[in-house]
Formats: sequence, structure tokens, C-alpha cells
Amino acid sequence: MSDSALLPHILDLASVPRHSLPQDARKMAQLSLFDWMVVSLAGADQPLAHIIRDFVMAEGGVSRAAVTGAAVRLPARAAALANGTISHALDYDDTHFAYIGHPSVAIFPAALAAAEDMGASADDVVDAFLIGAESACRIGMVLGRDHYDAGFHQTATSGAFGATIAASRLYQLDRAATRAALGLVSTRAAGLKSQFGTMGKPFNAGAAAANGIEAASLAKRGFTASTDAFAGAQSFLAAHHGAAGGSAVIDDWSFDQFFFAAVSHKLHACCHGTHAMIEALLLLLADGAVAVDDLDEIQVYIAPRWQNVCDIKAPETGLEIKFSYVFLAAMVLRGINLAAYESYDDGLCHDADLIALAKRVKVIGDDQIADSAARVDLKRKGGQSRSQSFDLLSPIDPMLLGTRLLAKAKALIGDDRANDLWAMTNALEQVSASDLAAKLQG
Amino acid sequence: MSDSALLPHILDLASVPRHSLPQDARKMAQLSLFDWMVVSLAGADQPLAHIIRDFVMAEGGVSRAAVTGAAVRLPARAAALANGTISHALDYDDTHFAYIGHPSVAIFPAALAAAEDMGASADDVVDAFLIGAESACRIGMVLGRDHYDAGFHQTATSGAFGATIAASRLYQLDRAATRAALGLVSTRAAGLKSQFGTMGKPFNAGAAAANGIEAASLAKRGFTASTDAFAGAQSFLAAHHGAAGGSAVIDDWSFDQFFFAAVSHKLHACCHGTHAMIEALLLLLADGAVAVDDLDEIQVYIAPRWQNVCDIKAPETGLEIKFSYVFLAAMVLRGINLAAYESYDDGLCHDADLIALAKRVKVIGDDQIADSAARVDLKRKGGQSRSQSFDLLSPIDPMLLGTRLLAKAKALIGDDRANDLWAMTNALEQVSASDLAAKLQG
Repeated sequence: MSDSALLPHILDLASVPRHSLPQDARKMAQLSLFDWMVVSLAGADQPLAHIIRDFVMAEGGVSRAAVTGAAVRLPARAAALANGTISHALDYDDTHFAYIGHPSVAIFPAALAAAEDMGASADDVVDAFLIGAESACRIGMVLGRDHYDAGFHQTATSGAFGATIAASRLYQLDRAATRAALGLVSTRAAGLKSQFGTMGKPFNAGAAAANGIEAASLAKRGFTASTDAFAGAQSFLAAHHGAAGGSAVIDDWSFDQFFFAAVSHKLHACCHGTHAMIEALLLLLADGAVAVDDLDEIQVYIAPRWQNVCDIKAPETGLEIKFSYVFLAAMVLRGINLAAYESYDDGLCHDADLIALAKRVKVIGDDQIADSAARVDLKRKGGQSRSQSFDLLSPIDPMLLGTRLLAKAKALIGDDRANDLWAMTNALEQVSASDLAAKLQG
Repeated sequence: MSDSALLPHILDLASVPRHSLPQDARKMAQLSLFDWMVVSLAGADQPLAHIIRDFVMAEGGVSRAAVTGAAVRLPARAAALANGTISHALDYDDTHFAYIGHPSVAIFPAALAAAEDMGASADDVVDAFLIGAESACRIGMVLGRDHYDAGFHQTATSGAFGATIAASRLYQLDRAATRAALGLVSTRAAGLKSQFGTMGKPFNAGAAAANGIEAASLAKRGFTASTDAFAGAQSFLAAHHGAAGGSAVIDDWSFDQFFFAAVSHKLHACCHGTHAMIEALLLLLADGAVAVDDLDEIQVYIAPRWQNVCDIKAPETGLEIKFSYVFLAAMVLRGINLAAYESYDDGLCHDADLIALAKRVKVIGDDQIADSAARVDLKRKGGQSRSQSFDLLSPIDPMLLGTRLLAKAKALIGDDRANDLWAMTNALEQVSASDLAAKLQG
């Protein structure tokens, strides 16, 4: 897609009506809503959550949109800033590999706050989110990997455009005003990967969400801005190392299918590089009882690049466990729930049984295996073996994914709150955006 | 200066005490404060001013900092956003050529709002502004022209860093917290030249100011961010086309002299390319009576690049007059005040006397003349002639500049308000930041 085709394409996307939204993508958006609310609540007591709430609550303002973890409502822009930041605190939210970003944490906070501001329904939130997230994916794919490699955090940059589209839809902007909102956010969108490892990373998500509210709110009032956010010598794409036409080779840019449908949810609270191994092990366990003590060796085949990332052989802290194939494999085999934060206890590193079991795990780099995949071979004493492969990019049945996300939720926020939220997000047609947002308050 | 030397350098600058500030630069900062307040008030009824005020006033919040043109106070961040945007509405504020940006519109709104928030004095506002503006100049010079040419608006990008330094000083951040604030604003700073000609341009200034308040406020509360805003592979400089080490060749980076002292104030409400000619003509007029009707020809020598910018021979609107050497020369010769907005009336284009006089003006491109300069030769009937050159970069006596800025102020906001503001900004030791800010309210 050429740079100059991108703006009309995104404006067309912004006005797709609910009945034309691809149902598989919309179902994934609904699951992402649930998961986003779960990780928001789970992160609500993190240090950065206290700081960002303190900042926006000190500013105060009209009571329009709920703030995660607080019994107050604030202006939509402030709520979006706080909620986006808090929801990315644990880095446990969804990911989209095609545009290399986290869609929910930048776009749901904007959609939810704008919907509350407008008295819209919960279903409107999901529609606006989905269209915003799909916009972020498509813009992100046109920006391409050069943009990411130059140092930009696409969750924040593409995310700000997605948040603007979501907010513009909820604030009922027409095509011209939506165009102005995109032009305005093109001069506001920012975010660097140099923040990784600091509170600046989750802040990028909150800032993107707040940018979306701000741009849509100003454009609704008649603010003018550059007429093409994307094309031209000094546009956002040109200035921010956007690959002309995009690095992704995509044949079908129609709206029949949404790229968002391939969103990936994080099901374990440890390094992403270990997840394919964990899934393969869980499949082996689900397939029938594994007599762990009868195992001679557990062989884990992974892409060689991960050996520099998450192959700590003898972890000494809970944090190091998250980067240890051998220890995580032992934990799965012993039935420990890797979705729960408290499973990664420092004390576990001294558990003699886990240490012994971890020593039987062999990690083997294999350049035939994709970055997103792993294979596990269980070798029993006496020579028999069972093998299981898993690729994180392979499609997952939404029903099964829902079950897994509910289990993750229970591990993070307890059974009662998880079940309550699950029930509400599965009956969205019955509730308002404000009903939904109230659940974030604690 | 190397990228890695920039952060400690700016942190050193941030803590220079009042008594060590270069007095020539501080005097210019005081004049810039006056001029900034004048253009703020003059722009307070522009359409974009109504929109941005409506947005922040709809959000509401605690009463901390005055909003230009409104009888309310709002949270510091909101006031900075509105006041920065409004003050750049007329594009009639100061410029710094070394870093290619407008220092006052991005940095004064942050300094003033933070100072009000902290109950600080008017002198504290000037100190914090000066140090913020000097930081923006030095960061801007290290960013260099590549950054500007790639599409970035340094008023917004370098300006956000300057606003952060000013706010950090007023919020009394220590060195570690100021470092965190700079790290945080490095992921927030943005702004594109593609906005020129739209409300997005003044918005860039307001956003920079708001970014400064936000980053300093969060860092004060313990928010963490990347530890070096400038150095490293994915830092702000690297991602935003910063020239490594800066394109400017500067020998003396000490704090004995401030680059800010070379700030340039706009004295005429028309295209900057015409200002050197206007100044040369005013000097000729000041030097003795010019019998305009005795003139045979008025020759204006300018750098050839301006011929494509501001050499409209027969303007048909007030806006076109601003880009017409020949018409502006005729207006100066007839004693019309070019500092006043209302001088650029559409009706003037049909004034037979001015049209006739404009026809006697010849504009001559001369590649010996600098972009910032002009020469005017007045040829009298009978052969005598007088000649005058002017270069906008030549130093101007602060007393004379003050007189000129006061005259500009009177033309823009009337004698009473101009005199009142002039008196206050010349007795800053007697007033608080809030006294000062109250003058912006109308």
C-alpha cells in the first residue's frame, strides 16, 4: 500500500458498521477486553499505578470516566492516561506480531473512556476498539520494521493512531473531523523502546491512549491539522523511518478479514520465548498422565536466538525463573500454575525436587524451529518417548482460549472477580460502558 | 559535544543558581516574557484559542494556574497546553535561529504554570524559563539541522525538553529526578512541521509545554524512565535524526555565556523575510525626513531565496500584503505601523497612492546578501541617493529593543494594557507568578 493510499483506507475502515465487522475478529476483541481488564486489575497495586493515579487525581476534573483501582471518575483524557499505563504495568497483556505491538493497552483505555464520556454501550466499546486496533495493525504494518528498529515503540506510535480512531468513532466524528484528528495525532504520537525496563514503557501505552482522546476531542470542536497524517515529505511516516509502502507484503487489504484476529494473548507470566515450550508440555500432560519420575530426559528444541534470552540454568530469583527453560519445564511437570504471579517465588529456586527435575531438562537450539515454536520430547526410562510441537502463531479455538484466559484471570485476581468479569464480558449487550468501567475501580 | 556528554551537561545547566545567570541573557528573557504575554493576549480571541480553552475548561480540575483569556484557573498541565497553543496562534513570538525554534511559546507556559502551582515568584519564572530555553537551544544545536529537515518542529521537540527543565526547577526536583523527567519526556516529545499552516503548529507549542509539566510532575512522584534521554542506539537523538555530536560547530559550551541571548523578537506582523528591509527603511526614515514624493526609485536588495517567498508584486488581500516587499515598503514610507495586525487590511490593496508608490520599488536578488539581511537604496529625482543595510542577526541594544517591543505591544493590545504589563515585567521582584499569570486572563 502506498503512503498516500493509507489515509483514505483508514478513514474507510473507521466507518465500517457493526454488522460488517468480521465475527472472528470481534470475538477476539471481546476476549481481549476481558484479558485487558484482568491485567488492569492485577496491576492496579503496582508502584507505577499509585504514582500515575496520584498525578491525575491531584489534577482532578469532571467526573466522566473510571480510573483503574480508584473510587473516582475523572476527565476521559486523564482516565485514559492512567488506565493505559496501569494496564501495561505487568506486561501481561496481548500482543500482535504483525505490527509488533500491544493493541489493548493503548486502545481500550481510549475507547472505554470516550464511551463513558458519551454514555455509549459496552458493545460500542468493543466495536470502536476493534476498528482502532485494526487501524493500528494496518498502520503498523505500513510503518514496518525499520520504524521499530530505529527505536520506536509501536504500541505507542501506531497505538496513538488506533486510539484516535477508536475515540473518533465514539465521539461521533464525521470523516473530515476524523481526518483532522489523525492529522493532529500525527504530531503528538511518540514513544521509544529505550524506556523498556522502566515505568516509561507502560507510560507509552497510557500516553497513546490519552493522545487519542485529546486529538478526537479537539478535532470534534473544529481544530485543524495537517490534512494527511501519513503521506508527504514531512509526514509522520517519512519523519519516523516508515518504510515507504510498508515492509509487510500483504495481498489482501480488504475489510473481509481483520489482521487483528491473529492477536496473541499471554497465558504465562514469564518470558514470551518460553511459552511455546510450556504449551507443548501442557499438551503432553493433557494427553494423559505423565509419570514424571519415570522420565529419563526432557528434551526441549527451540530457535537458537532464545538461548541468549531465556536459558538460565540455575535461577536464583523468581525473576530469573521467568527466563529459565529448565526450571519452568520442571514447574509445569509438577503442576505449578505459571499464569499466577505468585508462582514465581524466590524460595522455589532452592526446592530440591524442582532443581533435580530441572537438571533432567536439555535445551537444544535448532535452527529448523521458528521463533514462535518449540518441540518437547519426553524420553522415558527404557527408551520410549513422546513428542509434541507447538507454534504460538497457530490458530487457537476461541472457546479454548476463553477457558485459558479465565484460568489466567482466576490466578491473577481470584475466582470471584474473574467469574464476575467473565459473565459481564460475555453479555455485553446488557451493559453500558460505565457498568464495564466500574469493574476497573477495584 | 558527544551525545553521551549532553545529559550531564544539561543537568549541570539545570542547577545554575540565579546569581550565576548571565545578565545579558536574563535581560533578554525578561523582554521575552513581556513579548510572550503580549502575543498571548493578542491571540486570545483567535478561533483556536476558543477551541483549546473549551477543551481544557470542559475537563476542569483543581484551580492552580491561569488560562489565557479566561477567568478561571486549571491544573498546571491543562493551563500549559492551552497557554502554549494560544501564545503561538499569531506566530508573532520570538525565534532562536541557532536551534531553529520558538523558545517562549513552549517554555514560558510550563514555567508560569509550574510556578503558580508552587506559589513561586515572578523572578523564579524568568530564571526557570531562561535555563529551560538555554537547554532547548543547546539540545536543539546538538540535534542539528538534519532533525529539522527530516520534518521535526524543534519548537515542539527541543521545546519539550526545555519545558521539562523549567518545570523540574520550579517543582524543585533533585538531579536524579530531573534526569528521570528528561528520560520520560524523551518518549513523549514530538511535533511535525507538516502542521504548518494549520492549528497544529501552535498546538505543537502547547503540547511541548504540557509535556514538560507532565514529565516533571511524574518524576517528582518517583516515576522511572530511561536513564539517558539522549545517548544510545535507541535514544531520542538516534531515533529522531539527531546529528551525532550536532551539526553546529561550537567551541564554548561553558555557562559564562548563554546562546539564548541571541534570541530574536518579531517586530512586524508580516513574513520574516521582509523584516530586514523594513528595519533598513525605518533607519532611513529615523535618520531624517524623507521626501517620499521626491523619490525616483526605491531599490531593495535581498537574498535571492526570498524572491520565491515574499515578493508578491500586486497583493489582493491583507494576507498577501504580508508577503509583498513592494507594498510593505510603500506602507513604511507612508508611516503605516507594520507591527499592528489591523494594518494589513484587504482594502489597502486598492489604495491608489500605495499602489503607485509600490510600483517605484524594485526588488533585486543579490547573492552577496545574507538571508537575514537587506539593503535599501533610496534614489532621489536628480540623482542623489541614500543607502542603508540591516542584518537581523546584528545585536540590538536591550533598551532600544524594549522600546520597540512596547510599541509593538501598544499596537496589539492597546496603550493601557501594554503600559500596565510593561510596568509589571520591569518590576518582577515585587510580584508573584500568580500576579503575573493573572494578567493573561484578559
